[in-house]
Amino acid sequence: MYRNFSIVPKIMFGRGSFNQLGDVIAERRLHADSFFVFVLDDVFVGKPLQDRLPLQGKDLLLPVNVDDEPKTSYIDSLVEKIRTYCPVVPDGIVGIGGGSAMDIAKAISLMLTNPGSSADYQGWDLIQKPSVYHVAVPTLAGTGAEISRTAILTGPVKKLGINSDHTLFHQIVLDPELLAGVAKDQWFYTGMDCYIHDIESLNGTYINEFSKAYGEKSLDLCRQVFLEDHADRDDKLMMASYFGGMSIAYSQVGACHALSYGLSYVLGIHHGIGCCIAFDYLEEIYPQGVMEFRQMMEKHQISLPRNLTAGLGEDALQLMVTTALNLVPLWENCLGADWQKLMTRERCLDLYKRM
Amino acid sequence: MYRNFSIVPKIMFGRGSFNQLGDVIAERRLHADSFFVFVLDDVFVGKPLQDRLPLQGKDLLLPVNVDDEPKTSYIDSLVEKIRTYCPVVPDGIVGIGGGSAMDIAKAISLMLTNPGSSADYQGWDLIQKPSVYHVAVPTLAGTGAEISRTAILTGPVKKLGINSDHTLFHQIVLDPELLAGVAKDQWFYTGMDCYIHDIESLNGTYINEFSKAYGEKSLDLCRQVFLEDHADRDDKLMMASYFGGMSIAYSQVGACHALSYGLSYVLGIHHGIGCCIAFDYLEEIYPQGVMEFRQMMEKHQISLPRNLTAGLGEDALQLMVTTALNLVPLWENCLGADWQKLMTRERCLDLYKRM
Repeated sequence: MYRNFSIVPKIMFGRGSFNQLGDVIAERRLHADSFFVFVLDDVFVGKPLQDRLPLQGKDLLLPVNVDDEPKTSYIDSLVEKIRTYCPVVPDGIVGIGGGSAMDIAKAISLMLTNPGSSADYQGWDLIQKPSVYHVAVPTLAGTGAEISRTAILTGPVKKLGINSDHTLFHQIVLDPELLAGVAKDQWFYTGMDCYIHDIESLNGTYINEFSKAYGEKSLDLCRQVFLEDHADRDDKLMMASYFGGMSIAYSQVGACHALSYGLSYVLGIHHGIGCCIAFDYLEEIYPQGVMEFRQMMEKHQISLPRNLTAGLGEDALQLMVTTALNLVPLWENCLGADWQKLMTRERCLDLYKRM
Repeated sequence: MYRNFSIVPKIMFGRGSFNQLGDVIAERRLHADSFFVFVLDDVFVGKPLQDRLPLQGKDLLLPVNVDDEPKTSYIDSLVEKIRTYCPVVPDGIVGIGGGSAMDIAKAISLMLTNPGSSADYQGWDLIQKPSVYHVAVPTLAGTGAEISRTAILTGPVKKLGINSDHTLFHQIVLDPELLAGVAKDQWFYTGMDCYIHDIESLNGTYINEFSKAYGEKSLDLCRQVFLEDHADRDDKLMMASYFGGMSIAYSQVGACHALSYGLSYVLGIHHGIGCCIAFDYLEEIYPQGVMEFRQMMEKHQISLPRNLTAGLGEDALQLMVTTALNLVPLWENCLGADWQKLMTRERCLDLYKRM
């Protein structure tokens, strides 16, 4: 049985396309007194980007903090804030920022129309009602959050996304100019999220020609961005991210993402850097990918943090292992149906202990 | 100003995915007594594919003939046939076949909800009302019709598509198994439509990183299909077609497509073979592409018809030139804003006279 794959149906791409955001959402403004919510990564508060937002009338600027990855409790409080601001559901949500800001925008859009806490919907296809119209404006490239059907959240008992076709954005605006000014480490870690998507997708058992076409081109673009020197590297990375997202969406990620979830859940390590930390220990599984990844690190003089798990107690380590191994489809994609024989708790624990 | 690009929002890909067509459309069946129309290229009438169509209840099988490329009069008569069959608008249209059958399915979907003749809508964004839900099931790969916002039609005064976001399919089912059994010439000419899309897009002035990523990967897949030998060449060609279509959708085609329209309008030559005929005379514009195209022809022992315009009168030749040169965006993409200085009527006529 093949999955019927939903794709973000509208996309605008180009340098300066952000200037057209106001026009793009204009047709979704329903009444003179209805409003849009602009979910803005708070690193941009007071920066030129804030002044360029096409706010009008009753629109609400909602700065969000992503020092920690998004928690379900944070989503619930943001939804409450919007409801307090206006009891009527907004015409739309625009998420401006990296993967976390985009995930927050997705989750808010869903929770404005679905009852209860966002934690109730962590899992697959639990959302019943269509979301509010929502738009992605990435300012970082690599996560694939702009194209994925997942809003990744850390809940009271697990880190797990709200996976649903309703999670998908209705519109993406890809403006490579917005990538300018990001710190090198952040740029690298987020870009490696994409590179690792490609490696995990292309080396997985779920691969098919659809995911392969997207994954191979994404990989090609990542190599151009991280191993060569191109003036238009931001354009290339933005397309690499989109293609990488499309590739995993119709296949799956693998071992590195599973391990990164454990690092994230127990140590609060952000996803991009968590993927890099984990990937560096996965040469048995992805030998060529890890070798090339190290070339990329060297070229950009990136040094990863080490000895992160050294001070952890047995309970914390075991929770990490459990978090990672619970992600069954990722391991199945990586190692096949018999993955449990190949990735035992012991082997997983050993990997974590080395990090 | 960038265009806000609409994409077919649902896609299913995989060998045997055609078996799930019934499930895919089930959720779009609105009432027990409403119906779907299956637009089927009549080469499949009486063939196994016909028996595999998931018809039920009042569904209508509508075989269509594509010996000639679709005419607006033919569309109008098919729409009339459906209205006579049932005055209520169907729940959906499924188009099964090559580019022409898919274009017929698109045009019917539009004309069931928009008044007048399909000839009234040849042009850009003239459609006012959303179409009936429509699904593409390609049995040939290369045209990109499955992903394009155009239903190409020959009208009383011109060959020109109905270009509109409403033209887009709502769903694509890409089953590479359906490509088995196509005649070699047909397979080659249709595949070259895709190859030429890529060359025209990548060498055009409208190119951007979005179209480039899709075009380059499509070209890579075309090379694998037509210059190498792969067991999964049908899977690759299906993805090449989709990617090639995505590439031109956000850029544009060029000289070869413009010339092919003239051949088609005056001589009734089908689009795929028309593109091949024209491309072979365009080495001044696409030197590398034409060279590689000839390698592909040689590998597959394809010989093109020659001397097609030898017996034509001056009026017919001039009509051909006018048809081609009317396609302003194609020439602008190919040769830049000053294209009229570079592609004069004389030069265009000379090209046609050599064909």
